[in-house]
Amino acid sequence: MFTGLSAFPLTPITGTGLDTAAYARLVERLAAAGVDSIGALGSTGSYAYLTRDQRAEAAKIAVGAAAGTPVMVGIGALTTSEVLALAEDAQNAGAAAVLLAPVSYQPLTDDEVFGLYEDVTRELSVPLCVYDNPRTTHFQFSDELHGRIAGLPGVGSIKIPGVPAGAKARVDALRARIPDTVTIGISGDPFAAAGLAAGCDAWYSALAGTFPDAAQAIMRDPAESERLRPLWDLFARHGGIRVLAAAATHLGLTGDRVLPRPLRELDGPAREEVIATLAALSL
Amino acid sequence: MFTGLSAFPLTPITGTGLDTAAYARLVERLAAAGVDSIGALGSTGSYAYLTRDQRAEAAKIAVGAAAGTPVMVGIGALTTSEVLALAEDAQNAGAAAVLLAPVSYQPLTDDEVFGLYEDVTRELSVPLCVYDNPRTTHFQFSDELHGRIAGLPGVGSIKIPGVPAGAKARVDALRARIPDTVTIGISGDPFAAAGLAAGCDAWYSALAGTFPDAAQAIMRDPAESERLRPLWDLFARHGGIRVLAAAATHLGLTGDRVLPRPLRELDGPAREEVIATLAALSL
Repeated sequence: MFTGLSAFPLTPITGTGLDTAAYARLVERLAAAGVDSIGALGSTGSYAYLTRDQRAEAAKIAVGAAAGTPVMVGIGALTTSEVLALAEDAQNAGAAAVLLAPVSYQPLTDDEVFGLYEDVTRELSVPLCVYDNPRTTHFQFSDELHGRIAGLPGVGSIKIPGVPAGAKARVDALRARIPDTVTIGISGDPFAAAGLAAGCDAWYSALAGTFPDAAQAIMRDPAESERLRPLWDLFARHGGIRVLAAAATHLGLTGDRVLPRPLRELDGPAREEVIATLAALSL
Repeated sequence: MFTGLSAFPLTPITGTGLDTAAYARLVERLAAAGVDSIGALGSTGSYAYLTRDQRAEAAKIAVGAAAGTPVMVGIGALTTSEVLALAEDAQNAGAAAVLLAPVSYQPLTDDEVFGLYEDVTRELSVPLCVYDNPRTTHFQFSDELHGRIAGLPGVGSIKIPGVPAGAKARVDALRARIPDTVTIGISGDPFAAAGLAAGCDAWYSALAGTFPDAAQAIMRDPAESERLRPLWDLFARHGGIRVLAAAATHLGLTGDRVLPRPLRELDGPAREEVIATLAALSL
């Protein structure tokens, strides 16, 4: 479950809610491409913006459309009680694993975050991936805290953010703190090739959620990542979710409206630049 | 509505939900103390952690218990659709104004934040206070953006974070960008006296939500703020919400359980230090 290429699709949200048909097609396409697992309702999948009912529906659609490819479902929310409810829904939908970030409003202490994972793992019957994403949660895990959480029963992996420099030292330092049974997966697509070269066991990839072939090409040949630099530059400038939403619309995978308000789709010159970059990179 | 001392109470959350009796008592106490307005469901009031139903109930309780003191209700949420629903609930409960922060998961662009305020003010029939709190939302308003938003119909005030140094220059720069009809209110209690001295029209105060007399004393004599430095130090160390929750419990205003999980009440030496500091400051 927690090794290889894990593809995180967009969850298309229109003015009236989840676009269930487009979402099913996105997931089917990933299963057909042969990714190792699918990450439903990750950050690029807008999990934080959906209601409990919408998330339960999306989880069911993803498991059905994945047709046997294991699906990990994001269960992050601001309160422990909501996380526990989402965990139950994800398991009922057939999730093979869950992904949990310490979503924050008030900055959380280490003991509060440990308490969250302790309270949730106690109730789970599928394995959990710890989601470390300071860009969205604004919580900084220490390696010591990663070690404490990774020792909880049922923790199977840690999804770490991209490491712009010194990936090997970062992965080694974390590996020294966690049990052998817990894998490390890289995210932050622009830094994935470096993370894999540094010994990460998995790539939790937003790119793969829309461009599974391109991500598989990077898995085979890390030099492919360098070729995609113009795309990474767009990710840095606009946020990956907005670039991938524009791409999915342009490719006809979704309608024009993809992102939950107040997020907005790229338009005008920014959208034109995404389209031109996709063409130049043959994506 | 948007001048003078505005008191922001805790919203006590037990294991089973909102402690309605304790919440009503907290608000009644503020009205009795003669604060100028009450800010229900601010950050210290845990708005981000409550369900729509709980927030609607809290808004009704606050307006009832305030007995004529105007109540501003926090309507922040991650999606525009949820904010609009919360605005409707707040108005139905009798709110005199609403408070809106650009709550974020994906980092928001200036245009997205402007779009949020545009979409919400279009639907409102009570005035809105723009809530600028980068510590919790991680969104940084530029003065240019504040100016654009303050020009929207119905915007009545801006709640700015504490300015540790150079408050006068900060307030003057902002004032130059916004209409005369829009007030500026300071928050970040440790810096409130400096903000008021710099010309802020209001103090949006978490301290006043639990210690209205102490806040009124600072309104009369800014030197009082210096006397409370040991309390400000505790705010910096533990977060104001945890210190005020411990204080409210110690004073018998609430039960032992106040904060929504994963947030935790202070215990052990941290709690003892809060209690000792309250005693030393005669709070």
